[in-house]
Amino acid sequence: MKTFRKRLYLTLDPNEKGGIPERIFEYLLITIILLNIAAVIAASVPSLEEQYKELFVDFEIFSVVFFTLEYIARLYAIVENPKFSNPLYGRLRYARTTMAIVDLLAFLPFYLTFLPLDLRFLRIFRLMALFRMFKITRYMQAMNIFKRVIAERKEQLVLSFIFIIFILIIISFFMHLAEREAQPDKFGSIPEAMWWGMATLTTVGYGDVVPITPLGKVLGGLFAIAGVAFLALPAGILSSGFFELLHSPRSKKHICPHCGKEFHD
Amino acid sequence: MKTFRKRLYLTLDPNEKGGIPERIFEYLLITIILLNIAAVIAASVPSLEEQYKELFVDFEIFSVVFFTLEYIARLYAIVENPKFSNPLYGRLRYARTTMAIVDLLAFLPFYLTFLPLDLRFLRIFRLMALFRMFKITRYMQAMNIFKRVIAERKEQLVLSFIFIIFILIIISFFMHLAEREAQPDKFGSIPEAMWWGMATLTTVGYGDVVPITPLGKVLGGLFAIAGVAFLALPAGILSSGFFELLHSPRSKKHICPHCGKEFHD
Amino acid sequence: MKTFRKRLYLTLDPNEKGGIPERIFEYLLITIILLNIAAVIAASVPSLEEQYKELFVDFEIFSVVFFTLEYIARLYAIVENPKFSNPLYGRLRYARTTMAIVDLLAFLPFYLTFLPLDLRFLRIFRLMALFRMFKITRYMQAMNIFKRVIAERKEQLVLSFIFIIFILIIISFFMHLAEREAQPDKFGSIPEAMWWGMATLTTVGYGDVVPITPLGKVLGGLFAIAGVAFLALPAGILSSGFFELLHSPRSKKHICPHCGKEFHD
Amino acid sequence: MKTFRKRLYLTLDPNEKGGIPERIFEYLLITIILLNIAAVIAASVPSLEEQYKELFVDFEIFSVVFFTLEYIARLYAIVENPKFSNPLYGRLRYARTTMAIVDLLAFLPFYLTFLPLDLRFLRIFRLMALFRMFKITRYMQAMNIFKRVIAERKEQLVLSFIFIIFILIIISFFMHLAEREAQPDKFGSIPEAMWWGMATLTTVGYGDVVPITPLGKVLGGLFAIAGVAFLALPAGILSSGFFELLHSPRSKKHICPHCGKEFHD
Repeated sequence: MKTFRKRLYLTLDPNEKGGIPERIFEYLLITIILLNIAAVIAASVPSLEEQYKELFVDFEIFSVVFFTLEYIARLYAIVENPKFSNPLYGRLRYARTTMAIVDLLAFLPFYLTFLPLDLRFLRIFRLMALFRMFKITRYMQAMNIFKRVIAERKEQLVLSFIFIIFILIIISFFMHLAEREAQPDKFGSIPEAMWWGMATLTTVGYGDVVPITPLGKVLGGLFAIAGVAFLALPAGILSSGFFELLHSPRSKKHICPHCGKEFHD
Repeated sequence: MKTFRKRLYLTLDPNEKGGIPERIFEYLLITIILLNIAAVIAASVPSLEEQYKELFVDFEIFSVVFFTLEYIARLYAIVENPKFSNPLYGRLRYARTTMAIVDLLAFLPFYLTFLPLDLRFLRIFRLMALFRMFKITRYMQAMNIFKRVIAERKEQLVLSFIFIIFILIIISFFMHLAEREAQPDKFGSIPEAMWWGMATLTTVGYGDVVPITPLGKVLGGLFAIAGVAFLALPAGILSSGFFELLHSPRSKKHICPHCGKEFHD
Repeated sequence: MKTFRKRLYLTLDPNEKGGIPERIFEYLLITIILLNIAAVIAASVPSLEEQYKELFVDFEIFSVVFFTLEYIARLYAIVENPKFSNPLYGRLRYARTTMAIVDLLAFLPFYLTFLPLDLRFLRIFRLMALFRMFKITRYMQAMNIFKRVIAERKEQLVLSFIFIIFILIIISFFMHLAEREAQPDKFGSIPEAMWWGMATLTTVGYGDVVPITPLGKVLGGLFAIAGVAFLALPAGILSSGFFELLHSPRSKKHICPHCGKEFHD
Repeated sequence: MKTFRKRLYLTLDPNEKGGIPERIFEYLLITIILLNIAAVIAASVPSLEEQYKELFVDFEIFSVVFFTLEYIARLYAIVENPKFSNPLYGRLRYARTTMAIVDLLAFLPFYLTFLPLDLRFLRIFRLMALFRMFKITRYMQAMNIFKRVIAERKEQLVLSFIFIIFILIIISFFMHLAEREAQPDKFGSIPEAMWWGMATLTTVGYGDVVPITPLGKVLGGLFAIAGVAFLALPAGILSSGFFELLHSPRSKKHICPHCGKEFHD
């Protein structure tokens, strides 16, 4: 017969295939997380905040108690996991995992609100609870694929990002030169021109800042087309990364003799 | 010699290769569907609605009669299909297929308009007739490829969607904090800031809501660049999905040892 | 020794590797084509049109004479090509190829301008001369790859297009319902709402038409995110198509037993 | 024991694996480059320029001295590299490499500012210092992958670019015809219409120029959808290019996605 701690562990751990109580707990947890997100969003609307103030406070207290108890339960039961079997050091090591920290951040900031400070900013941590969604079993594998694709293509993605920043600075410099006389309030300095550059390179194009001189329009047009080409880089990198990882059923691992890192054929 | 029912079945079923009468029927059906779509669109223009009111009503009645007869004919002839051969249960099972329900919805709501209610909303179902276009033979196979790509990559696509929603909430929260004092009418609450966030992450960028504080612009610029990177995720997933499905000449089937689902090499 | 006709043929045919006179002719042709394009663009600017009217007319006459002579020369020399060797039928068959028609359209409309009609619209055919750029040797192979990728994925690309049109109609219908009371001038009919829908689905987002009701914003946001997902379809299709065609050095051809079409491993 | 020149060479060359002094130099160099970029950006803000004028000038002098000394040191030490071992011709050949020219341009324009000319434009060369970032070891190899993908797909990328320019000219021509009467200030000539065309094809969509006639909106909508399809071309080309280079099961050659080097099984 399973001990209480063993059954608690199986209920809480998303990696373990569960029966009916495990699934009820999973759905309860998802519901509380989603309600928390909804509460943070709703409480930001002044009219709702005023009308349902007490409801928001009551639900916050309930959530914090629930998350606190859940955290304590996880810490108590984790020693059933062979990786964290030591009663003291296993638990400490578990508490330092990313997921345990995310769990902790979901309720810890609440206790700070008793201090006489404006800590509305700390509500962001309740939004962090959304991260916990990724612990749901059926998304964990898809999540791992994302992580591996990004890890294998890290250098290329970082380089694309540096390229984009670099191009952003160069084009903002030129647009600043071309437009500063015609629109000193919008292109009067490179940082101001970068707001235009960002909107153009990402193709967002708000339209609040637009070149008006012929030279500015010609440069702006060329930069926009160049921007589109560079935006294809991360898409191409991720696309080939996904394929590389998912295509090969053999999943042959290779270790590069040059850099010693592992990758998949 | 073929019976009338058999010939009717072959005429109606898009999977069967047809002769001249079958092709005439196919083109007639496409024409009526497209005219229905055009009629719904044209009837929404007040000036056209007024001028050609009777024409629209007449065409609606004609279409409903046509679709009703076609539906009855399909139900009558479907027993020629070995999968639905039972006169009662076969027909009932056929009536529950997605395509039969789409067919039914294309005309059924019309009969409700005799009720004394404002049911203009029900016109949406006439637009649904466009779905029936996908039954045209030459697109059915391409459609199946889409379905399989999406089915095989479902978890990853859903996860991308959760990511995008998650990022949308986080960045709207921060922009709300950064801009609520400068623009209380546009960033006064998280839901309002989400309208900006949606326009930015999707790179639509209407420009009706734009940050105006330096902090808001810096955050907005970073979020826009991050958004572009995340938008590459679904493109990469779909791209590798298409390739995986179409590339392999051996078309060996594999069963994933983790999730038990079938996939193609 | 080569005859004059043979040498003319080798000079004109982009498929034949040429010596110095052939390359000079190629660059001359490119220069005249680009100058034609520049002239059409420049002549549309009222101030330039007025100032350099005679220059534009002179250059147009020169170009038309040049293109006419070139066309006659091609027609004369084409019999050197074994595929078009018959003096009459070979030349007629050549005249019916896409490229010969493009060549013809580049100068033929000019002769119509002697008729007493406003035929400024016909200038579009001079722009068509740009198509002739694709006959330049080094781009012909890349062009063929584009053609094959698009030909092999035609059904999927057409289906994506139908999907986008379908979604455009559906979302415009809903936005029309949601916004027609608040903005009767912008969402008063489905065609008007489709202008918003087009700007949103393609992520262009001009911002001249934007939902202002809460319901319209919620729907608009969802539609924009859905639009981005659908835009990933053609990218994914083309991406996998390019890879499929270019990756395999063996270039094994397959013939589908269902549709009888050829595809590449 | 290593000579001073040998040690200097190892410190300066990013290809050589370095010890602690080499890494300190690398981080120092990155810091000075980033501070230079920050200084150029900050000096463009009038209020900062005025307040910290002397600081900017001092830092510019320091940077130029540093870059000059570094350049001389590289030129002195480069003969340790077997490829540039000749004291005179080796150094001259090194000075003609792209990277040496980038290094030179980072400080040379400064000396021109003693001339009585407005050479603020030359600051662009200080931005060029950002190029030197790509010499950092860990990005050089990812950079090589980019270069090879772009080199292998050059014709296709150039052809996509020609296509986009071609379509831009064609649609601007039509929009000019459709809108010139309604909006002579915005679509009065093809070049003016091209500003709209560029914003639409790249999906930037500023919204400062928008068609207002029904014909213009219909054409504009169709062009926007076509533009999106063409934008998928470079993404598809790059995507398949990355995959082709990194994943090749046929040959026993592997290219590590981390460092870009090639090895055999």
